[in-house]
Amino acid sequence: MTQTINLAKKDIPKQWYNIAADLPSPPPPILGPDGKPITPDMLAPVFPMNLIEQEVSTERWIDIPEEILEILSLWRPAPLKRATRLEQYLKTPAKIYYKDESVSPAGSHKPNTAVAQAWYNKQFGIEKLTTETGAGQWGSALSFACSLIGLECKIYMVRISFDQKPLRKTMMRVWGGKCFASPSPHTNFGREILKKMPDTPGSLGIAISEAIEDAVNDTSGKTRYSLGSVLNHVMLHQTVIGLEAKEQLKLINEKLPDVIIGCAGGGSNFAGLAFPFLYDKINGADITIIPTEPTACPTLTRGPFTYDFGDTACQTPLIAMYTLGHNFVPPPIHAGGLRYHGMSPLVSHATKLGLFQPMALDQLKCYQAALTWARTEGTICAPETSHAIACAIDQANKAKDEGKEKVILFNYSGHGLMDLMGYEKFLDDQLTEYHLPEEYLNKSLESIKDLPQV
Amino acid sequence: MTQTINLAKKDIPKQWYNIAADLPSPPPPILGPDGKPITPDMLAPVFPMNLIEQEVSTERWIDIPEEILEILSLWRPAPLKRATRLEQYLKTPAKIYYKDESVSPAGSHKPNTAVAQAWYNKQFGIEKLTTETGAGQWGSALSFACSLIGLECKIYMVRISFDQKPLRKTMMRVWGGKCFASPSPHTNFGREILKKMPDTPGSLGIAISEAIEDAVNDTSGKTRYSLGSVLNHVMLHQTVIGLEAKEQLKLINEKLPDVIIGCAGGGSNFAGLAFPFLYDKINGADITIIPTEPTACPTLTRGPFTYDFGDTACQTPLIAMYTLGHNFVPPPIHAGGLRYHGMSPLVSHATKLGLFQPMALDQLKCYQAALTWARTEGTICAPETSHAIACAIDQANKAKDEGKEKVILFNYSGHGLMDLMGYEKFLDDQLTEYHLPEEYLNKSLESIKDLPQV
Repeated sequence: MTQTINLAKKDIPKQWYNIAADLPSPPPPILGPDGKPITPDMLAPVFPMNLIEQEVSTERWIDIPEEILEILSLWRPAPLKRATRLEQYLKTPAKIYYKDESVSPAGSHKPNTAVAQAWYNKQFGIEKLTTETGAGQWGSALSFACSLIGLECKIYMVRISFDQKPLRKTMMRVWGGKCFASPSPHTNFGREILKKMPDTPGSLGIAISEAIEDAVNDTSGKTRYSLGSVLNHVMLHQTVIGLEAKEQLKLINEKLPDVIIGCAGGGSNFAGLAFPFLYDKINGADITIIPTEPTACPTLTRGPFTYDFGDTACQTPLIAMYTLGHNFVPPPIHAGGLRYHGMSPLVSHATKLGLFQPMALDQLKCYQAALTWARTEGTICAPETSHAIACAIDQANKAKDEGKEKVILFNYSGHGLMDLMGYEKFLDDQLTEYHLPEEYLNKSLESIKDLPQV
Repeated sequence: MTQTINLAKKDIPKQWYNIAADLPSPPPPILGPDGKPITPDMLAPVFPMNLIEQEVSTERWIDIPEEILEILSLWRPAPLKRATRLEQYLKTPAKIYYKDESVSPAGSHKPNTAVAQAWYNKQFGIEKLTTETGAGQWGSALSFACSLIGLECKIYMVRISFDQKPLRKTMMRVWGGKCFASPSPHTNFGREILKKMPDTPGSLGIAISEAIEDAVNDTSGKTRYSLGSVLNHVMLHQTVIGLEAKEQLKLINEKLPDVIIGCAGGGSNFAGLAFPFLYDKINGADITIIPTEPTACPTLTRGPFTYDFGDTACQTPLIAMYTLGHNFVPPPIHAGGLRYHGMSPLVSHATKLGLFQPMALDQLKCYQAALTWARTEGTICAPETSHAIACAIDQANKAKDEGKEKVILFNYSGHGLMDLMGYEKFLDDQLTEYHLPEEYLNKSLESIKDLPQV
């Protein structure tokens, strides 16, 4: 029999875990336009104060409000599963466990923070949220959350994904969300970009700029912006993933994993699984923790750790992170969720401290892994998730070479049912290997050479 | 907290329940071309003998082979959930439970029988299966099952669905299946239809004819045909749904349901949930059991109970069932899986005996119910499933009017993530009410007026 470890509803974590309390050193401060550390009130036009408090908190545990737990319980606790059939196929002595975050109504881990953010905004008196979305996972998740909590939702979707996945928009509409291709004619920044680059595939950086502009320009004060990854409070909300996984491994008397893997675009599904185990690593456990990213957007593996803007229009404060430069427009590979130029400052800082071992993987290898997965374990994964699966397969093969019964744990961050166009192209041999050219990267990094250094 | 009742892997039913053992009278016999009851060997060119034995069995319990349980355990036992948020929204005293069959890798209940059929064929030495698919759920399910069990799979997909859902084909390809629009140029019957009606949207009847022709024409004897609904052995394989649901209700000390609902195209998801409870009804329990169907294809509510062919080319034996006539081509409504002209002979017979209370529902009402569902319970259901949800909402409102705390149980047969085009049209007000015109029905029924009567 396949092994699935379910927790009872009552075992949903009641508190989020804040890694900021346990990092060996604090991350560099966020800087304002004047180069000085920002104060919470400077973020107030963009985020509600209750979330800003979470953003800067160094408390180890933060209570999850009952109403949020109530909605999360629609699909949480998410199952922990063992990929026995994949293990057999690979003839590996390793045990491969995965946390199945695809079971949420929107199909990924994203609703974990969407529900929390919508709830805190509602508490603060906000009536409308604006956001951006890459592959569409986040836009769907926030639409879903706003629908259940009772907020309006407006989404700027990176144009390449908007065009490739028209039904993502339908999904958002089903939950009442309004979705536009970005760059759009609805914002000053969008109009400016459209004039300069009418054929741009768009980028998360551009879409973020549009969504922020839309929020801060609402003079009623009832609109705020919501970000689906990168920020500290987002990582915080996602820690239910790793906290549950720990309980589930305990339940079957399994040891702590030897290897933990998550794909990383802005970093949130990776951090959600990894941070609760990073606590153990900081306290001496021998765990290899791997964020995986596409070779087409190799933020952690080839970008510098330095100050940069979170968006393309330079509206955000300066964040110390691994970055490819805020003007970076990644090639249109299908893992839309992994196309962000930057990376969560907490994930970046921990990587800089040597706590993580990032790896970049090419899309062909990842789609091949996704096919192997579908034909052994049965399910069709998101292109983003295939980066974690490909890495898990590599690690399982390594364990086989070493003859070690390692425990591998990865995050099955989402299903790929809305992303089948990429599979179609792969099956038709229309995709190629893609490694970001050095010159392209260097050109992109020029935009940040005059910004403060860490 | 939301209520989800999970069973342990070890609690997957170890036997299928065969309603044929307990019906008050046996269904009318299946007839051959000569008007006489057929013998099992007459089905041998189409199905493997081990499945034919199941088809005619009257044993109450049939053991599920270990290898089938192993694969089913990838997603089974499926959760039983309570739709608390919908109850609150409706302000009903009724408790609404649903069996969530959307959790399978292919997204519906269909893999329950696909895995079993693929396994029995493999055991019998078969190397390739042919089949038809309407909305694509069945074709996906059989591709998935063949992939895991190691068979080739060839699928004829009703053209209207093939065109509306190109990514269903991709899904089948991911699992190695080959999918063609039906009518196709690959069979004699397909070519004939294409000549006569080049613009036909196709029908399940036509696609079945093509798939059977393809199977029986393989002179190697290594190809068989597989049907995703209608037949007795398919109903049998689906009874894991109702058997689990009974255990799950017992686990929370809930009484037997007052109302049980499933949408019915060929009848398999409905029967899978209903048959194990029909046993209780036959033995005196007061349960209203409702198969729901579209007003566009009202087989049980407006068709006669008589002998008819299962396919359009009249290749199958004659089956006693409710039917709209084997030439019936339903209008292109989006609930592709509910567009079959006939109905499972077991479901038909039990309906004739007065054991079921079928209802027909219009697509607008169903899409509205699907939207209400998405905005309360969070998930996006298949258009087929929306027929069960709409009926559950009606029954919950009825319980409210009557002031009764009824227990309602329905089958959440599949998710709608591959069917968003229909939602898009509904949201754009492009769909209309559709009730099958009397003349259209009468014309269709002419084709069967010379066939034997029950």
